[in-house]
Amino acid sequence: MIYLTRIEHFNAAHRLFNAQWSEEKNVEVFGKCANKNYHGHNYKLYVTVKGTPNIETGFIVNAKILGRLIEEKIIEQIDHKNLNIDVPFMQNKFTSVENVIVAIWNELEQPIADLGSQLHKLKLEETPNIFAEYYG
Amino acid sequence: MIYLTRIEHFNAAHRLFNAQWSEEKNVEVFGKCANKNYHGHNYKLYVTVKGTPNIETGFIVNAKILGRLIEEKIIEQIDHKNLNIDVPFMQNKFTSVENVIVAIWNELEQPIADLGSQLHKLKLEETPNIFAEYYG
Amino acid sequence: MIYLTRIEHFNAAHRLFNAQWSEEKNVEVFGKCANKNYHGHNYKLYVTVKGTPNIETGFIVNAKILGRLIEEKIIEQIDHKNLNIDVPFMQNKFTSVENVIVAIWNELEQPIADLGSQLHKLKLEETPNIFAEYYG
Amino acid sequence: MIYLTRIEHFNAAHRLFNAQWSEEKNVEVFGKCANKNYHGHNYKLYVTVKGTPNIETGFIVNAKILGRLIEEKIIEQIDHKNLNIDVPFMQNKFTSVENVIVAIWNELEQPIADLGSQLHKLKLEETPNIFAEYYG
Amino acid sequence: MIYLTRIEHFNAAHRLFNAQWSEEKNVEVFGKCANKNYHGHNYKLYVTVKGTPNIETGFIVNAKILGRLIEEKIIEQIDHKNLNIDVPFMQNKFTSVENVIVAIWNELEQPIADLGSQLHKLKLEETPNIFAEYYG
Amino acid sequence: MIYLTRIEHFNAAHRLFNAQWSEEKNVEVFGKCANKNYHGHNYKLYVTVKGTPNIETGFIVNAKILGRLIEEKIIEQIDHKNLNIDVPFMQNKFTSVENVIVAIWNELEQPIADLGSQLHKLKLEETPNIFAEYYG
Repeated sequence: MIYLTRIEHFNAAHRLFNAQWSEEKNVEVFGKCANKNYHGHNYKLYVTVKGTPNIETGFIVNAKILGRLIEEKIIEQIDHKNLNIDVPFMQNKFTSVENVIVAIWNELEQPIADLGSQLHKLKLEETPNIFAEYYG
Repeated sequence: MIYLTRIEHFNAAHRLFNAQWSEEKNVEVFGKCANKNYHGHNYKLYVTVKGTPNIETGFIVNAKILGRLIEEKIIEQIDHKNLNIDVPFMQNKFTSVENVIVAIWNELEQPIADLGSQLHKLKLEETPNIFAEYYG
Repeated sequence: MIYLTRIEHFNAAHRLFNAQWSEEKNVEVFGKCANKNYHGHNYKLYVTVKGTPNIETGFIVNAKILGRLIEEKIIEQIDHKNLNIDVPFMQNKFTSVENVIVAIWNELEQPIADLGSQLHKLKLEETPNIFAEYYG
Repeated sequence: MIYLTRIEHFNAAHRLFNAQWSEEKNVEVFGKCANKNYHGHNYKLYVTVKGTPNIETGFIVNAKILGRLIEEKIIEQIDHKNLNIDVPFMQNKFTSVENVIVAIWNELEQPIADLGSQLHKLKLEETPNIFAEYYG
Repeated sequence: MIYLTRIEHFNAAHRLFNAQWSEEKNVEVFGKCANKNYHGHNYKLYVTVKGTPNIETGFIVNAKILGRLIEEKIIEQIDHKNLNIDVPFMQNKFTSVENVIVAIWNELEQPIADLGSQLHKLKLEETPNIFAEYYG
Repeated sequence: MIYLTRIEHFNAAHRLFNAQWSEEKNVEVFGKCANKNYHGHNYKLYVTVKGTPNIETGFIVNAKILGRLIEEKIIEQIDHKNLNIDVPFMQNKFTSVENVIVAIWNELEQPIADLGSQLHKLKLEETPNIFAEYYG
């Protein structure tokens, strides 16, 4: 079994905020991440698929085709967007990096299976000092 | 003459938008950067001062004190904020990386002079592939 | 299960040295790492916790609180220190990156459990070309 | 169990090409990677061994000795070479990153066992955006 | 005056070789860089333009348009190519990083002037440890 | 005129300390950098030479020969050493990054001139967030 990872980038605004809570409680829990006019990040997304190399190509997946799929399913929906407002697959969800990574998994798992490959892992960097990982 | 650089980070939301223009013209010129609900970045700010080493310390500037000054004058104003709305020194300015770097220079030049040092250069990275530099 | 990683930094001096051995044997095994007046590194520490997102916050752990705990339990003890002399949790241990990572695990495991979270993995970079990983 | 990783670098030319296929099919599948006069990369190789620390050294493996072994078995064979022509352990193989990582594993597994250590994982970065991982 | 830099990437094969010299002299001067079947690199190109911000956009240059121009004039000619054989603007030149950067300058200077901007500097990284800079 | 930069690394221990001052004043000015048992860093040294390409090689300097010279004059003296005790060219100097960069310049300027090249600039990174630059 070999694991192949392709990295993509997107830039997005968001805020951490629980609408059930008072402004004070939001600030207490989320700190400056609760800023009402949003802040933002350069996100870095690692998509890892697994498989065995095809004997005609040496590939477990054609990275160009994988890249186009990530572009269509994720980057076009999320890049230069507001995660709290604009992104179909983030509707009614807190935009913590934990929730974003699960939502991206749900968008990618079936389309990657349809390519004949298998999604193994996602990694999502929010800042140079914070990242999440998810295996489904 | 020796140049000493201290790097700081901030995360902010912004959009590129000219209120004098139609929505169509904004999208034509600014593309997805015009998204009305904002997007955002992890900005990386390089502050370079110049001078000759103090004979009692070997420092051209005490980097801890420089760090505190940048924190107070810039990071507290801009980190986890919306550049188009929340930042006092960006009021009524387009939030291009070129304009942000000039505005930061104007905030830092005098306070650094008051430390007995001299601001030489700023560098501001907006994404891994775009940065601005300014010498006043 | 989601994995969240927070990265922290510390700078420390150390030497590799077995007091039971002759100087010659120390140099033979440890090379320039045995230098008697020490050398040092910018260490980069990755702390990974695992869990499922809290439904009120979207967090598996509040990264601010995790950061404060790492600061108190590790960074304050080890940053700008000599690993062979100054660090309580490294007393009487060789200061190889393998031993440092195990000692940090032992300091963090219970306090992270007390937060209601679970330490999953540590990664410790000693140089740009050497790092250790540990899962307890 | 502790995991120790040493990173090495090599620069090589290659092309992706299936000699059984027409030029058109090669371009269709491999795109610009099929360029007949080759292109190339700065590869970054992560070699991870696992074990428990030796009580006399604190090491799971002496990283200097591991480095020399990787240098002799891999870097001298592959650095500043053409993967399709010059490298003994790549003869008659497609030079996809998936195939290169498996071939490097086969060269390193036994010699690392002969050091009394155990190869756990390889990671091979081909570009800043593509890497493979292999556990044997 | 503000300086704006856009970074682009290309992967290419090359060899260092003086056809006037014996094989021995080539190896003596160029070492493993003279390998007859080529080696290669992931090059990283920094294109810096200078100017004052346009009052309608805040831009000294539209980075999207600059990016398209670099793509057309440089990346399409040089990416996934052999610098010694395939690249029109490198014909009959040694492919040292010094020569490549001057050749890229000559391709970009006029087209950037035609955009109403001014090329200030190029930086070209050949490996993580070697780069060239050129100001025309 | 073309500028070529070669990057080298060294790891060293040091402390910031003025022996004329009380312990309290040292801590007040230098903070944790004054720790009496030292701390340390992974330093990254950028050596930039300038010139015009040789018509027989395309080089402004042979980077292999430049690398050997930096190794001999600097790295062998300073790597895995204590800057306050072990390094001949740092005797009786504060080991601030400003002083270290000037001392390295003084060691390299003449030997690089003897190669027929010209030292243009040094850059010395002490941590990921602090670096010095010097032009002689």
